[in-house]
Amino acid sequence: MKNLEKMFYPKSIALIGASDKEGSVGKTISENLLDYKDGEIYFVNPRITKLFNKPVYKSVLEIKKPIDLGIIAVPAETAIEITKQLGEIGCKNILIISAGFNEIGKIELTNKLLELQKKYNLNIIGPNCLGFLNLQNKLDATFNSRKKLNLPKQGNISFISQSGALGIAILDLANYDNLKINKFISYGNAIDTNECDLIEYLYTDKDTDVIMCYIEGTSNGKRFYQTIKEVSKTKKIIVLKGGLGKKGGGAVKSHTAAMIGSSETFKVAVEQAGGYFVESIEEMFNLAKTFSIYKNINLKNIQIITNGGGFGVLVTDQIEQSGMPLAKIKKQTYEKIKKNVPEYAVIKNPIDLTGDATTQRFITTINYCLEDTNVSGIIILFLFQLPGITQDIIPEIINIKKQAKKPIFIMTIGGNITREWINKLKDQDIVCFKDPSDFGKTIKKIYKK
Amino acid sequence: MKNLEKMFYPKSIALIGASDKEGSVGKTISENLLDYKDGEIYFVNPRITKLFNKPVYKSVLEIKKPIDLGIIAVPAETAIEITKQLGEIGCKNILIISAGFNEIGKIELTNKLLELQKKYNLNIIGPNCLGFLNLQNKLDATFNSRKKLNLPKQGNISFISQSGALGIAILDLANYDNLKINKFISYGNAIDTNECDLIEYLYTDKDTDVIMCYIEGTSNGKRFYQTIKEVSKTKKIIVLKGGLGKKGGGAVKSHTAAMIGSSETFKVAVEQAGGYFVESIEEMFNLAKTFSIYKNINLKNIQIITNGGGFGVLVTDQIEQSGMPLAKIKKQTYEKIKKNVPEYAVIKNPIDLTGDATTQRFITTINYCLEDTNVSGIIILFLFQLPGITQDIIPEIINIKKQAKKPIFIMTIGGNITREWINKLKDQDIVCFKDPSDFGKTIKKIYKK
Repeated sequence: MKNLEKMFYPKSIALIGASDKEGSVGKTISENLLDYKDGEIYFVNPRITKLFNKPVYKSVLEIKKPIDLGIIAVPAETAIEITKQLGEIGCKNILIISAGFNEIGKIELTNKLLELQKKYNLNIIGPNCLGFLNLQNKLDATFNSRKKLNLPKQGNISFISQSGALGIAILDLANYDNLKINKFISYGNAIDTNECDLIEYLYTDKDTDVIMCYIEGTSNGKRFYQTIKEVSKTKKIIVLKGGLGKKGGGAVKSHTAAMIGSSETFKVAVEQAGGYFVESIEEMFNLAKTFSIYKNINLKNIQIITNGGGFGVLVTDQIEQSGMPLAKIKKQTYEKIKKNVPEYAVIKNPIDLTGDATTQRFITTINYCLEDTNVSGIIILFLFQLPGITQDIIPEIINIKKQAKKPIFIMTIGGNITREWINKLKDQDIVCFKDPSDFGKTIKKIYKK
Repeated sequence: MKNLEKMFYPKSIALIGASDKEGSVGKTISENLLDYKDGEIYFVNPRITKLFNKPVYKSVLEIKKPIDLGIIAVPAETAIEITKQLGEIGCKNILIISAGFNEIGKIELTNKLLELQKKYNLNIIGPNCLGFLNLQNKLDATFNSRKKLNLPKQGNISFISQSGALGIAILDLANYDNLKINKFISYGNAIDTNECDLIEYLYTDKDTDVIMCYIEGTSNGKRFYQTIKEVSKTKKIIVLKGGLGKKGGGAVKSHTAAMIGSSETFKVAVEQAGGYFVESIEEMFNLAKTFSIYKNINLKNIQIITNGGGFGVLVTDQIEQSGMPLAKIKKQTYEKIKKNVPEYAVIKNPIDLTGDATTQRFITTINYCLEDTNVSGIIILFLFQLPGITQDIIPEIINIKKQAKKPIFIMTIGGNITREWINKLKDQDIVCFKDPSDFGKTIKKIYKK
């Protein structure tokens, strides 16, 4: 197993290709690194002398201090020489942002890198990648411009992505959806450190509970299977694969030059090994969020509570299709609810509190259901457009969720007001779904395990 | 076939149950009706004399003018008497908002209504419904409070929903997503006017091109099949069904007391008749929007243009799974693009303009592809987080879409900035997708036909 601790927690970093050129990769990484306080940052560029009020070194050989992490953002040809220099000065961890290697057919350049990796016993991430981000220690070694996106909050989900651009788009979405990230690693061509090395590292990382992967291919199917099998014993691993078909596979070749293998085999392998194979980004997010909040979720059945009958019907269909049983509340729970709701409310599963349901009617019913040992989880379907329900319900739900020992999910449909209210719930780590079919997919995955 | 013209385009309306009570159904409908300028509005309530500066009649019998549409929002028992009075004065179209009929087992009340319907040859919509909305003439006969949601813009999509609450949530989402609606009809228990009558009416409605349906069941499967078959000749009809399974079916019984029938039969029937059976609200929206913009869409193949390789891979997978072929651009198109993009761009399908792609690089490539007769449609995958792309591209895309004779779809992933930019495209009737799998589903439906 690779020891990547100093890659992600370095005491000193050299950025080769630091730049003052507006909009350049080098300037963006330089800027992003300024937030890092757990180690020294050395900028290297023979053409400038100062950057962000820090001295700029002409070469890594000039630094004369131990370097834990070298970040290379210079053209491919130069990157080889720099890698050699870093090897010479004893730097073991190198992140190569530079493109122009095997993904465009430059095999000899790639081979030169591999020779140096062996010679100096290096850990190389990349080349042709976006870099990595460690929110645990605020180390942003990506060329991800903060002008166009905000970083997600820090949490227990780590994400490895063979595609850099897709990776940052997903980080951006994670910020928007309040998916809390620990580490994000774009690993590009993976000539040395590959998906298995990274998953193994994240397995040992005490701050990561959930591992999300966007993978275009693996060079060692057997190792990939065994890695997932091992990791799944204590952590959740979710895999989104690009290049499933023949055409998609062709697109992968031009993209990261990964070996792809049969898609069906890949899916079966992931699932048999105890991982979760997902078919969309939305599905990956819903599952990751659920696992990040409910680490050891054990959902045997579920109770639906709604103020919209049709909405209840659609979600019932989805739960039924997922194979998860609907909860059957006890007679005493029925009686308690009955006393607190109007005659026309339907106390079955779904419980339809009807369109004029007030916050009080919801809260009482939710609490009675949570107390019932026949219920292992609850999905609350809100239609905020209806007259009975007001914004008051939001803090009440947040409060219930904090104390509840059972998972609570929310689903709602609507426009601006709905989204504003829902964002408050999301901010408090409540899993919210936007469509019955999304919930169905998540439930199916959770229940199958 | 029912003649519902005066139901939706009345010269005079009586609202029985008009009210000044804050938050009541009666007050909300009264308020919503004030926007209607194509006919007289008469408020009826024996307990008040004035409402919104208009006189209030004690009874419909006092109005002494012909009434095209009677809207009843009083308790179920009273609704029977009012229906009789409306029948007596020659009003043929009645919308019954009131609940408390067969959905809670009150069969005799329902039967009384049906007797009156026959005796006076009435068109009754409801009971137990939210009402209807005609954006063509601004007739809002729903109890849908504008305080909690904005109405969608007027367009060529009409929507019938057996569920009222789900219906308004979907209207709210339609406003948010810029899905342009013509008529929305919540038809509740459908004791008289049912889904087939409404679909038939919308078939004759010159302002409707696309019909979306949320249906929990039909009482006459054969008629439903034949209606869809007829309508599908010139219009697009999309069906979302609630109550697919046994449990969901049970939930329907408590909701609108509809006959459900086997779900598989239902799906096959809709598709064989030429309609589109969808499994989620998102899918319904994507399909409706596509058809509303591209009425006679004929997509034989598609070209992908992106600035994110991984994103291109995921979408290629989805297109491949849908069965739709990828376009193969002509050699001359390849040459023209080649001259205008850097060497490292990949000119295949997907065309990967890579992460530093500028607006100019995108626009040139899109235009060359649109000129190519080997290309019947284009999907543009934007990752707005990348350095090359700026907001300038938005007006350019809008301009291209206005002139293009081929369908152009957009897909993107991200947070606030992405959504802000995308909303500008949506406002200009450009179909935008949020996830590759959503696009795959839409393409599959379009191509299968």
